[in-house]
Amino acid sequence: MRDLGRRGFLGYSLAGGAVALAAPADSEKTEGPPPPVTRRLANYAVHGQFSDIPTSVRKEATRTLLNWVGCAIGGSQNETVPIAISALSPFFGPAQATILGRKERADIFHAALINGISSHVLDFDDTHMATAIHPAASVVPAILALAEYMPVSGRDFLNAMVLGIEVECRLGAAVYPAHYDVGWHITGTTGVFGAAAAGGRLLNLSEQQMVWALGLAAAQPVGLREMFGSMTKSFHPGRAAQNGLTAALLASKNYTSSDQGIEAKSGWANVVSTQHDYADIQSQLGKTYLLSENSYKPFASGLVVHPIIDGCIQLRNEHKLKPDQIEKIDLRVHRLVLELTDKKTPQTGLEGKFSVYHAAAVAITEGAGGEAQFSDRAVRVPETVALRGKVAVTIDASLKGDQARVVIVLKDGRRLEKFIEHALGSIQNPMSDRDLEAKFLGLADGVLPVERAKQVMERCWNAADLKDAGVIAKSAAG
Amino acid sequence: MRDLGRRGFLGYSLAGGAVALAAPADSEKTEGPPPPVTRRLANYAVHGQFSDIPTSVRKEATRTLLNWVGCAIGGSQNETVPIAISALSPFFGPAQATILGRKERADIFHAALINGISSHVLDFDDTHMATAIHPAASVVPAILALAEYMPVSGRDFLNAMVLGIEVECRLGAAVYPAHYDVGWHITGTTGVFGAAAAGGRLLNLSEQQMVWALGLAAAQPVGLREMFGSMTKSFHPGRAAQNGLTAALLASKNYTSSDQGIEAKSGWANVVSTQHDYADIQSQLGKTYLLSENSYKPFASGLVVHPIIDGCIQLRNEHKLKPDQIEKIDLRVHRLVLELTDKKTPQTGLEGKFSVYHAAAVAITEGAGGEAQFSDRAVRVPETVALRGKVAVTIDASLKGDQARVVIVLKDGRRLEKFIEHALGSIQNPMSDRDLEAKFLGLADGVLPVERAKQVMERCWNAADLKDAGVIAKSAAG
Repeated sequence: MRDLGRRGFLGYSLAGGAVALAAPADSEKTEGPPPPVTRRLANYAVHGQFSDIPTSVRKEATRTLLNWVGCAIGGSQNETVPIAISALSPFFGPAQATILGRKERADIFHAALINGISSHVLDFDDTHMATAIHPAASVVPAILALAEYMPVSGRDFLNAMVLGIEVECRLGAAVYPAHYDVGWHITGTTGVFGAAAAGGRLLNLSEQQMVWALGLAAAQPVGLREMFGSMTKSFHPGRAAQNGLTAALLASKNYTSSDQGIEAKSGWANVVSTQHDYADIQSQLGKTYLLSENSYKPFASGLVVHPIIDGCIQLRNEHKLKPDQIEKIDLRVHRLVLELTDKKTPQTGLEGKFSVYHAAAVAITEGAGGEAQFSDRAVRVPETVALRGKVAVTIDASLKGDQARVVIVLKDGRRLEKFIEHALGSIQNPMSDRDLEAKFLGLADGVLPVERAKQVMERCWNAADLKDAGVIAKSAAG
Repeated sequence: MRDLGRRGFLGYSLAGGAVALAAPADSEKTEGPPPPVTRRLANYAVHGQFSDIPTSVRKEATRTLLNWVGCAIGGSQNETVPIAISALSPFFGPAQATILGRKERADIFHAALINGISSHVLDFDDTHMATAIHPAASVVPAILALAEYMPVSGRDFLNAMVLGIEVECRLGAAVYPAHYDVGWHITGTTGVFGAAAAGGRLLNLSEQQMVWALGLAAAQPVGLREMFGSMTKSFHPGRAAQNGLTAALLASKNYTSSDQGIEAKSGWANVVSTQHDYADIQSQLGKTYLLSENSYKPFASGLVVHPIIDGCIQLRNEHKLKPDQIEKIDLRVHRLVLELTDKKTPQTGLEGKFSVYHAAAVAITEGAGGEAQFSDRAVRVPETVALRGKVAVTIDASLKGDQARVVIVLKDGRRLEKFIEHALGSIQNPMSDRDLEAKFLGLADGVLPVERAKQVMERCWNAADLKDAGVIAKSAAG
């Protein structure tokens, strides 16, 4: 697999992970017919064994699962979710699956859709940095619903999850960045493949059926970047989960599709992207895992402001800072910070997520950067509003996407400084298991009793040993 | 609206219809922000009145409806449909809507999906030639399901249908041919907008809600041309119907989306097409109707062989030809005929649709070109198999897509000749109402009792006067 190098999202590269082992010839430079990547991926999704997955990757899968379940529970209270339920519930089928964090149950398609929405609506879920994909957002809701509908062991569940995420992220790597740059929301366009592969594996599809499932997935991409900032953004991974699950179920009854849904002339890769590299799909498939590069957000905002929040919280805690001690906050940042988060006077929590000024201020006033700090309440706290007026931002071309330099000048003349080399949550400075648990409990606070939240966490950590993976969803019901 | 000229599908041009009245500046050549076409279309879909639709367009809408219902009834017996039902029925919601031609009922989403599949699976439905869109395939199943779920008068139904088809075809015209050429199945990618607009109109969306519905539609295109020849092709309009209906229902509860889902930088038009012309959307909107250019297939095969079937049937009937009189059949054809239908020894009915040799032979042996003539049975009839060996095909660069020259040389030395200037079913030589009725009855044969089939037809013809449009679907139950 080639090194995506500077192409990666926020400057992240696949080279940081386990996959940069081989560098085969770029498939775009070769002559002749394209490689049969649809069948290759189908073969992998049908035959990949849990016993072949390294322990570290299995562990990362449980971290991804835990983080995803927490985000879905927390997101279930966002207004987006009851709106979707009220619009769609008159058409729900049998109550086959749990809507996490809520009392309502639904058929597996609608459960997958709505759990996908709630897991992404806070923009707090996992991120595969090099491709900008949120890997769990489509894969997990699809198979978690299936695990309540049919018997699925925890081992089979985790195996399907790893295979689905691998299919999804490798397809994303193959078309990134051209596909993303033109305007596709890559989480939804590749998530449908991940959901189809993972769901199809649990349904025991044959290789030919899996080829058809991937073809049906190819025909149903979801998501435009234009929808960012509206409720439709979180609809993308939810609908991709539903589409992938539909693809797998149709294929299981021999609903046919193309045998070259991805690589054909009028197939997915050519239609949705002006460039692609099939080496990203084929190289070391089943030997290295993009899931091992997955990352988790400690803060409920866009990734670009994470180093700033990290630095401000550290300085606050180290110096027991109070807002009224502060004369000025000087930030040196990557250029994307001002491109994406230059909102000076945010009026809503959602706008707060796109305000570097609010992010720095609230990190000082509240000492945290969770969902509560990016709420409608938080952006109106007078102390925070006053402090954000003291934040100055300067672009520093020498900084990378996960770096920032925070300087706080105090009224007594002191000058406190912190350089964040890798923000908390980046691949080089990942959240610890304890960090993830604290984040989970914060998200579940007010939705599940704390004892039940701890039970859900326990089941995620021990997923591989569960006889019935469906209990994860059941115990997360609101 | 500009003249698509030679760009149109099979050489058809928008100039043939009612819309070539104005020629405003090409929007791609203008400076500044793009025109607000999402809001423009939303405004039209929300405010367009039935009383503004000319009688001729209303009549064309009933012809389109009749043809669509017949195709759905006939297609309901294709194996694709029971496969889809068996895969998805465990997840059906309440039995809100009819699956045409069948006993099963489903929630409105699944009814829309499956009726969309059955209406397109025979490749026998209506075609807007200049854009290659099958206009009814996504719009009608969406609103027909809705008409069984809530009170919808026939007048409101037809109005929504016309508005939806107009939105769909104008978006298609705006991105054709670049969008189609890259590999999108334009029926599914534009059908989702048509279904959203038509469904949203019946749901009485506000203009803002309709803007959101179109945005939700923009994020869910369906369909790759690579899927042609597999069951996934007919899945495209079905899923587009379901997606559009979902978009409209979500928007009705204020599920938000972009305000510029179509024209924004990362919006639909830029993401799915390298070229577009917004004049095709805006010009004469509400004054001229692309629906008036809709056409209906008299023969159950690809359009390119229609002039050949037409010519062969005419010569057969005029000369009371028997196959054993024939020495040779010489065909002069448009180049696309050999590009698309050069299959010399078809083994299945589906392959027969892509064999010009079978099409000519069966037109002589059976005197027809309906679904029965493109069945597994028909391609194996010895008399037809023998005759197709006597068919010779030559490309004639002077012929247009709806033209052919048929020469039949008899064993007694006679030479019979027929030049088809415009094939039956083309815009210039449309099927008559009686032709459409005969086609309908042929499709319903074996599915509905003939008296009931006639009742369904009567209801389609009189749709504008129905108190309850849902009765069209109810009377078409199998």
